[in-house]
Amino acid sequence: MWEAVGNSSPGTTMLVFDRVTTLKQHLRKLERQGLRIGFVPTMGALHDGHLSLIAQARARAEVVVASVFVNPKQFGPTEDLARYPRDLEGDRSKLASAGCDVLFVPSVEEMYPPGFQTEVEVTQASQGLCGAARPQHFKGVTTVVLRLFSIVHPHVAVFGEKDYQQLTVLRTMARDLGLDVEVIGAPLVREPDGLAMSSRNVYLSPEDRQRALALSRGLRQAEARFAAGERRGAALVDAAQAELSQVGLTAEYLELRDAENLEPRAEARGPVVLLVACRVGATRLLDNVIMGRVSS
Amino acid sequence: MWEAVGNSSPGTTMLVFDRVTTLKQHLRKLERQGLRIGFVPTMGALHDGHLSLIAQARARAEVVVASVFVNPKQFGPTEDLARYPRDLEGDRSKLASAGCDVLFVPSVEEMYPPGFQTEVEVTQASQGLCGAARPQHFKGVTTVVLRLFSIVHPHVAVFGEKDYQQLTVLRTMARDLGLDVEVIGAPLVREPDGLAMSSRNVYLSPEDRQRALALSRGLRQAEARFAAGERRGAALVDAAQAELSQVGLTAEYLELRDAENLEPRAEARGPVVLLVACRVGATRLLDNVIMGRVSS
Repeated sequence: MWEAVGNSSPGTTMLVFDRVTTLKQHLRKLERQGLRIGFVPTMGALHDGHLSLIAQARARAEVVVASVFVNPKQFGPTEDLARYPRDLEGDRSKLASAGCDVLFVPSVEEMYPPGFQTEVEVTQASQGLCGAARPQHFKGVTTVVLRLFSIVHPHVAVFGEKDYQQLTVLRTMARDLGLDVEVIGAPLVREPDGLAMSSRNVYLSPEDRQRALALSRGLRQAEARFAAGERRGAALVDAAQAELSQVGLTAEYLELRDAENLEPRAEARGPVVLLVACRVGATRLLDNVIMGRVSS
Repeated sequence: MWEAVGNSSPGTTMLVFDRVTTLKQHLRKLERQGLRIGFVPTMGALHDGHLSLIAQARARAEVVVASVFVNPKQFGPTEDLARYPRDLEGDRSKLASAGCDVLFVPSVEEMYPPGFQTEVEVTQASQGLCGAARPQHFKGVTTVVLRLFSIVHPHVAVFGEKDYQQLTVLRTMARDLGLDVEVIGAPLVREPDGLAMSSRNVYLSPEDRQRALALSRGLRQAEARFAAGERRGAALVDAAQAELSQVGLTAEYLELRDAENLEPRAEARGPVVLLVACRVGATRLLDNVIMGRVSS
């Protein structure tokens, strides 16, 4: 069951599938032709950050597959599953214009049929940071992504560095299981004023939208200190903290971590990442900045 | 890193790999040639039951891959990991003679490199039966088998029905994740006197070896009652129980379950399986009989 959607580049169309079986049939045909498959799993409500992932996949593969699935397993019981923004029509036209070849939009029942009971967990990298406030979240992410990988067989999969812990967890899963997929992190994309792009930004009131800028401003301050030679983790954290305090925000976490395995770092030696999560009004926002990386 | 072993059929050799990377390279070449790959994961100490799995894989695939890996993750802290029987030389020549094409014998470090932290769990089917006495056992099984599947990319994988819960758990995992592997159960193979073949039978003293026959004798009694029209679960259990009691054995479990999803069954309607686990001396033995199945 699929439908074709006109694509911006003449002569091509984006195929849309809502069934695992028919998607698999289509993709295995392409696989047998030796085509490289790039994959971008999303929860929809797409913004320019997502479209940059499509571009990264486009650059690395001959076929680009995206999925739009708001995965219930990665939401906690008190979280925003029901009101998570949905805009399938908008997503379809954005993806088609961005050069996506295949879109997978399964129902919850298609992804988790009755009797579904398999769970995948990455134990260490899922602990702390977002894992502390959202205890089942990453198990939901790894379970759905492994199922999607098994269906799509991507050669390369692209995730945003905005969700840095998620990216690390998924990289670890792919490495541990020996999956034939290269997990790529794509740079965080910001609004012109610095706010990290997120589907949840639509929740922010105009006032909270302004206060939220303290996150990126704080990380920029930390980055400037790092550029000036500061290596003490506490000093970098304080620089970011000062901006949050100024607008009355309290971070859920604001931590310096190893950029590869997310272990806590007291000093910014080697590649590190300064990560922040902060509730602004009722909206939980994430941001981070990577420092000391040779190339990004 | 691999070595070749002479095979009984002239002109063929069994390749032995101990590294993931080189095994993958070899198997991906065969995959690109369109060859069907059959896979038999084992813990070694091979007996005729294992060799029947190789024959089943042989019948369904053009390339047969076996692995010998005593998986620490599926042993509890008080279990027999250290003394689990090992006979790699014997296993190699048995596999080569049975027509195995590729043998994978990884070290623990190769399967679980430093930092390995991914776990796969099938929640419902792993509960009860062996899961009650061995709480982390099936998580260890599903984790290692998913890693092996990701490395080998089998079209078909064969497991013995002797470990019936394990087979069900692995089938469930493959179905849930949408893996492109057909999980096949091969009939339990018995010694001439009825004892279910197991690598752990070598632990039995001559006296315990005799007492252990009560398991298969009991299941045969239950089967005879079923054949005579008995459908009450309790009566079938009692028939098996009587044989155990006669030699002073107490089952760890002796239960009638649905043969597909392992749910408890009070009556033997549709395909059911009567499963027993029993410690004989210090040795924990499993056995089962499937009843009401249309074809086996």
